[in-house]
Amino acid sequence: MATLKNIIFTIVALAFCTMCTTSQKSIDPLPSWNEGPAKQAIVDFIRTTTDKANPEYVPPEERIATFDQDGTLWVEQPIYTQVIYCLDRVAAIVESKPELKDIEPFKTVISGNREAIAKLTIPDLEKIAVATLTGMSTNQFQDEVKKWLGTAKNQRWKRLFTELTYQPMLELLEYFRANGYKTYIATGGGQDFVRVFSMQTYGIPVEQVIGTAGGTKYAYDKNGKPILTKDPKMLLNDNYAGKPEGIHLMIGRRPIASFGNSIGDREMLEYTKGGSGSRLAMLVLHDDPEREYAYGPAQGLPDSKVGTFTQELYDEAKKSEWMVISMKNDWKRIFAFD
Amino acid sequence: MATLKNIIFTIVALAFCTMCTTSQKSIDPLPSWNEGPAKQAIVDFIRTTTDKANPEYVPPEERIATFDQDGTLWVEQPIYTQVIYCLDRVAAIVESKPELKDIEPFKTVISGNREAIAKLTIPDLEKIAVATLTGMSTNQFQDEVKKWLGTAKNQRWKRLFTELTYQPMLELLEYFRANGYKTYIATGGGQDFVRVFSMQTYGIPVEQVIGTAGGTKYAYDKNGKPILTKDPKMLLNDNYAGKPEGIHLMIGRRPIASFGNSIGDREMLEYTKGGSGSRLAMLVLHDDPEREYAYGPAQGLPDSKVGTFTQELYDEAKKSEWMVISMKNDWKRIFAFD
Repeated sequence: MATLKNIIFTIVALAFCTMCTTSQKSIDPLPSWNEGPAKQAIVDFIRTTTDKANPEYVPPEERIATFDQDGTLWVEQPIYTQVIYCLDRVAAIVESKPELKDIEPFKTVISGNREAIAKLTIPDLEKIAVATLTGMSTNQFQDEVKKWLGTAKNQRWKRLFTELTYQPMLELLEYFRANGYKTYIATGGGQDFVRVFSMQTYGIPVEQVIGTAGGTKYAYDKNGKPILTKDPKMLLNDNYAGKPEGIHLMIGRRPIASFGNSIGDREMLEYTKGGSGSRLAMLVLHDDPEREYAYGPAQGLPDSKVGTFTQELYDEAKKSEWMVISMKNDWKRIFAFD
Repeated sequence: MATLKNIIFTIVALAFCTMCTTSQKSIDPLPSWNEGPAKQAIVDFIRTTTDKANPEYVPPEERIATFDQDGTLWVEQPIYTQVIYCLDRVAAIVESKPELKDIEPFKTVISGNREAIAKLTIPDLEKIAVATLTGMSTNQFQDEVKKWLGTAKNQRWKRLFTELTYQPMLELLEYFRANGYKTYIATGGGQDFVRVFSMQTYGIPVEQVIGTAGGTKYAYDKNGKPILTKDPKMLLNDNYAGKPEGIHLMIGRRPIASFGNSIGDREMLEYTKGGSGSRLAMLVLHDDPEREYAYGPAQGLPDSKVGTFTQELYDEAKKSEWMVISMKNDWKRIFAFD
């Protein structure tokens, strides 16, 4: 009889555990989101695609969600963080190669003249990118970026750049993963750059970061140890059509959900929605000049230099049943430190 | 008191479960391997890198193991399986483009003249590869390969090509995964080709297949649905130095263990061993003419056209503490059907 009692006890204990789980599930997984169509669409999508009884159920191995970074997961204004990194690195580059100090565009960058720097052309910025992002070993690059991220601060908030991630999006990433989704970054930014902080900042391992990628060259360091050096040759321009192309190269599956904020994400969202079954495509709209920025024609503002959310994109979002996330209305808070 | 009893019962039950686990662990994870230095090296490596108390412990996120495919996971003689696929596809290509039937190398292939086919040059084979592996959508390609794999048979064994995988290596893949390793394929073969059967055959999901990869082009099918079409432009030649370069692009980490069988794997093994801590690099030696094939200079045989395991590689393996797996001596059986 003691055995029977024990069995009953075990069953009760198990039932209790199940209740714990159930009660945990009812905790809001998206506390920084206001109730509204955006949040509802996300919760409905997760429910639909993870419920085995639902005809639009998605098996775990196919649960792929891709996220743009700049302007979608963290602040991209007034200029992409990686561009600030490159400009900041110019001093170190010129120190090791003094012959560059009188050559443009390096001369302008080290002059510190902000107006002149703001006028640098795309070819100028490309020269700076090649000088600061290539030539070194992959390990050396990681160390340089890590060091910079640990000290450099954003001018407006006086905070580390990795603190300028959107809290609602961090919750969203976690919510997707808790529901068996593999979360990937698909950024126009540098793949190796974002990999340096992707795990710590977003909980996304390096192998799930897709970005604009140059080649590497297999080589040996002075001790004969095999290393890879970063090469200027472009392998993947992870923008526009390059996003689905990069997703195919790196994942080999069409995403079930994807998130962006600019015309560079258009093809990725279209590709995601082009699959069968339940699909989620969302665009973050920067419409909160108080707490962050407002840009794009939805605010009647001219397109900014970065993160172009055009009127055309807005119209396509409506037509294609992509959801627009209003930072102002859908997000209770923007940053973890708010 | 009943409660106390229940607690004791629960503890006993838990202890019993732990015993089950322990007893399961003592089941040989590599039953198709003979006892010997190769098997011992594998078991020691896994024990060392997964034991938290060991100074060479590797945290789970860094547990990456990469496997060459042709000649390492499945038969590569007398000719790579993917080459057979391409030759078999020529008939279908010529049917849709009859103008090719009088043009070389297609004319030779459809003639069925084996001697002439065996003499095709590398540029000939490249033309055939471009015609049979590119131009279609990624989905169409998957369907074509899947269909072929379901019916085409190997001439010697009269079996599907996916049955010609090495049982000891399948056990090894599973053993690594059971110990928290992420297993990747790093093949000189086509990435999209291998992805078609990687999960079913090796338990490796498509996103963990690194291979020689052409680009894709974002496009729309006749219904306006977004697709990707396979482009002849080479993105990654996943051979020699291309293996560590591809591994960096796709994973962004240096593997802790890697497995190959030819000079095309040399840099991957060297790169793997170049990291700090415990590392495992192994080469499969084809020295079993009865049960499979014998080739390479270790058998005093001239190099074969494929899977070149040179004397130089053999010497380097000894010098660099790479382990050589003798198919004849280390493997109890070669195939699951043996």
